This record gives sequence, structure tokens and C-alpha cells, in this order.
Amino acid sequence: MYGYVGTMRTTAGNRDKVVSILLSGVEGLRAAGCHLYLVSVSGTDPDLIHVTEAWDSKEHHDNSLKLPGTRAAIATAMPLLTGEFTSQELTVVGGLGLSS
Amino acid sequence: MYGYVGTMRTTAGNRDKVVSILLSGVEGLRAAGCHLYLVSVSGTDPDLIHVTEAWDSKEHHDNSLKLPGTRAAIATAMPLLTGEFTSQELTVVGGLGLSS
Repeated sequence: MYGYVGTMRTTAGNRDKVVSILLSGVEGLRAAGCHLYLVSVSGTDPDLIHVTEAWDSKEHHDNSLKLPGTRAAIATAMPLLTGEFTSQELTVVGGLGLSS
Repeated sequence: MYGYVGTMRTTAGNRDKVVSILLSGVEGLRAAGCHLYLVSVSGTDPDLIHVTEAWDSKEHHDNSLKLPGTRAAIATAMPLLTGEFTSQELTVVGGLGLSS
């Protein structure tokens, strides 16, 4: 299974607004091959958002970025972000709690 | 919900052995307040293991480290690790795919 972990930095004070945008369309991702889409925040960095994802494959993840709902969410969030991103592609080999 | 993301580096060639150790007792963590325990590997770094966890609370996570099964797994894995760890504590604010 394809895993993706990343962070995005928001402009000051806009973290919670971006979190809401990220979570707004998340149920729709299930049909697109998404098994996990977790949004987390840090206690030490008030403008940083962590996203952890698991997908059937990299192709499923990449295709999801073209979905109308995803594109709309990205367009809404973009002005609230500084442009500082990190990302890492992983292979999820197993564990507890992942819906199949 | 408490989130924990971390990496550990294994000595050369021992990644898959440590992955097996990490996954061996994972079902038992559910009763200890664990909602997610994902083990992932990197395509670009052959000796690195990523762990992503979600727990009812930090206390649940900390207490799990004292469980006999967890202590045994740590003791077995330790000689196969270089000692290079990273870790980050997060607050999981929502998303898709997390068992409640």
C-alpha cells in the first residue's frame, strides 16, 4: 500500500481554517482508493499541519489530486499557505487500524 | 487523539527483520488504547523504518511501552538498530480511516 506523509505551513493564524478545508471533503476520498487520511497538528509549531495518507497505489493518490472536490479544496487553501511543504513517499507494510 | 510519528534506522540488511518484530505483537495494542500503528518503509532509504501511531492519549502510548509484549519486542529489535531515532508528537484532529 502506498503511504504519503507531508507537512504544510500556513500563514499566521490560519492553521485551523486550513485544517477545516482539508477535512471538509475527506469522506469522498474513500471511493478514490484512500484508506487513511489523517490531519494532525503540532503542539510546538502553531502554523504547521501534518497529513498522513494511505492509498491503494501511488496512481490512486495522484489521480485524487484531479478530483473536482480536491482541486477546489486546494484552491481555497492555497492563499492561506506559505508555500513551505515537505513530503515523503512510503510503502505501508502493515500494522493495526488500517481499513482494508 | 494523540499522534506519534517516528523513524528508526536499522543496521544494514536488518530492516525487514525489525519490521517483522514491530508487526508481531501489534494486535495486542488495540486493548491498550491504540487506534493506529502503521509500519512503513522508504523506497529511497533501505535501512529506515517509519512508524505512525494514534492513541487515545499520550498516557496510553507511554503506558504501552511498559507492556511485557512491547518490552520483549524492543529488547529483540534493539541490537538490530543503529540508535538513530526521530520522533514527533502530534494531535490528530480528524480525517478518514481511523477506527474509533
